[in-house]
Amino acid sequence: MAVYTDVAADELGRFLADYDIGELLAYKGIAEGVENSNFLVHTSRGYFILTLYERRVAERDLPFFLALMEHLARAGITCPQPVKNRAGAMLGRLAGRPAAIVTFLDGMWIRRPTAAHCAALGEALARLHLAGADFAMRRENALSVAGWRQLYAACGERADQVQRDLKAVLAAELDTLEREWPRGLPQGVIHADLFPDNVFFLGDRLSGLIDFYFACTDTLVYDVAVCLNAWCFEQDHAYNVTKGRALLTSYAKTRPLSPPEWEKLPLLARGAALRFLLTRLVDWLDVPAGALVRPKDPIEYLRKLRFHQKVKSANDYGVTAP
Amino acid sequence: MAVYTDVAADELGRFLADYDIGELLAYKGIAEGVENSNFLVHTSRGYFILTLYERRVAERDLPFFLALMEHLARAGITCPQPVKNRAGAMLGRLAGRPAAIVTFLDGMWIRRPTAAHCAALGEALARLHLAGADFAMRRENALSVAGWRQLYAACGERADQVQRDLKAVLAAELDTLEREWPRGLPQGVIHADLFPDNVFFLGDRLSGLIDFYFACTDTLVYDVAVCLNAWCFEQDHAYNVTKGRALLTSYAKTRPLSPPEWEKLPLLARGAALRFLLTRLVDWLDVPAGALVRPKDPIEYLRKLRFHQKVKSANDYGVTAP
Repeated sequence: MAVYTDVAADELGRFLADYDIGELLAYKGIAEGVENSNFLVHTSRGYFILTLYERRVAERDLPFFLALMEHLARAGITCPQPVKNRAGAMLGRLAGRPAAIVTFLDGMWIRRPTAAHCAALGEALARLHLAGADFAMRRENALSVAGWRQLYAACGERADQVQRDLKAVLAAELDTLEREWPRGLPQGVIHADLFPDNVFFLGDRLSGLIDFYFACTDTLVYDVAVCLNAWCFEQDHAYNVTKGRALLTSYAKTRPLSPPEWEKLPLLARGAALRFLLTRLVDWLDVPAGALVRPKDPIEYLRKLRFHQKVKSANDYGVTAP
Repeated sequence: MAVYTDVAADELGRFLADYDIGELLAYKGIAEGVENSNFLVHTSRGYFILTLYERRVAERDLPFFLALMEHLARAGITCPQPVKNRAGAMLGRLAGRPAAIVTFLDGMWIRRPTAAHCAALGEALARLHLAGADFAMRRENALSVAGWRQLYAACGERADQVQRDLKAVLAAELDTLEREWPRGLPQGVIHADLFPDNVFFLGDRLSGLIDFYFACTDTLVYDVAVCLNAWCFEQDHAYNVTKGRALLTSYAKTRPLSPPEWEKLPLLARGAALRFLLTRLVDWLDVPAGALVRPKDPIEYLRKLRFHQKVKSANDYGVTAP
């Protein structure tokens, strides 16, 4: 929740002169996004979002993200649409950083999603996967199973500072997942970070998806597993079977899951839990004492991991899998 | 630069139902304002700013600030206008905090003001003082000379940690200012914090003033002294006589300064420098080690104080005072 880079008005005015979006009238830094600096920009043509990409986003990946948003928007998915400059480019440079202008999307994210929200999410996620099927570019998922060993190396030794025996739990889980991770399931474009703050609603209607900066090419049902973790557990970390059923049923209605996908869902959910447990743990251990920004709690994801370890089949999530 | 209080969409929707400003479509936390939480709110009727007042702003002062903005806007000063709810109130409660909706103001603040910007500021400040003349409410300036002894008590002992002999400099200056502070100069509504980030421009035209949350009833020319410090020194803390002349000449053209006001300007400029030196010092010493938010440098204001201590008369600021 921060703006890392300040932009001066004259600098932004010169940047916008390359675009056909009217005259700059106002801009405000937005307290959203932990990876990039975002500004709401008002011009004589309307409202836009300006993103400056900070060091945590690799510049070589930006063409993938921007082309994907353009592709999805054309396919009818409501997401921010990159605005091209007069030279036809979606990516420019501002304040020494790669920068892009995207359309402003109405809608609000839901702090406490209901089962109805989970159902709407399930359908939107399936539509996203279908719309991504003919997207030509590829991007490996740096934060899938092949990347976890490296994350573990960065935090494993200090993990027990956060919770007793956490290092052993991580090591054992990592061994299991590396051994059993499924390779043959349907692949495609996944969002990979579709938490509630990246999904906008207007009333009960899902109005848009944002923040495609973890999107990549990976196992589609792994994206479902990420959402199951992010949307279907309560504040006390208990799994909510009604929400899980709503999400999974709704997803499968739009994009039916094959028997192998259902079968591997519990293992993928363990993987999705371990991925966020590891990245949160790294951030948690990285923060200087006394810092004002408190990172997200890794232990929330340890609890989710333990739940999935006990799951015997997708039926335990509240659905009757074929 | 932060949002201290999160607001849920349903909560904000209920709050806005008391206003006649249409249906909530979107809202974003703004990374601006160090005292309060600000959100840009999009409704079917347009764009607004929602402010949640945090603990550093006294709730009993809010009616003064809001009534002042309404008064000034009516008098032709472009500033945020409080929006009344259906009950006619400008102040409500949201997320456990006092909250107000004000109109969204176009314009951008200037990171490196020129002499032309300083001239525009001078005129706007004089117009603000004239427009405030018939404002009926009063608010004491808690951060004027009567309040500095208390600030000194909070930071004096540790001042030498920041710069050698700073405690002695502060003590001597405080003695001088308490003894010589002028009492009989023209009083009225002052902004008291009109730094560049509180003044909006569209091109070279000054388009609005914001952030009236230090406004109070005090010596008018003290407000000029605050601006002289905030606008007319360079990055290397050298006084820029061209900018100072532009500000003062332009101010005096709209609201002529009396001979006693000119005479006391150097002393008031010392006071204005000490006020920001003390508050910045308190904030500087208050911040925990390793914090991500770096407070503003107090030493900048020590340099300004030293400059004003050497000034013999207002002529040294670049004007020929009567």
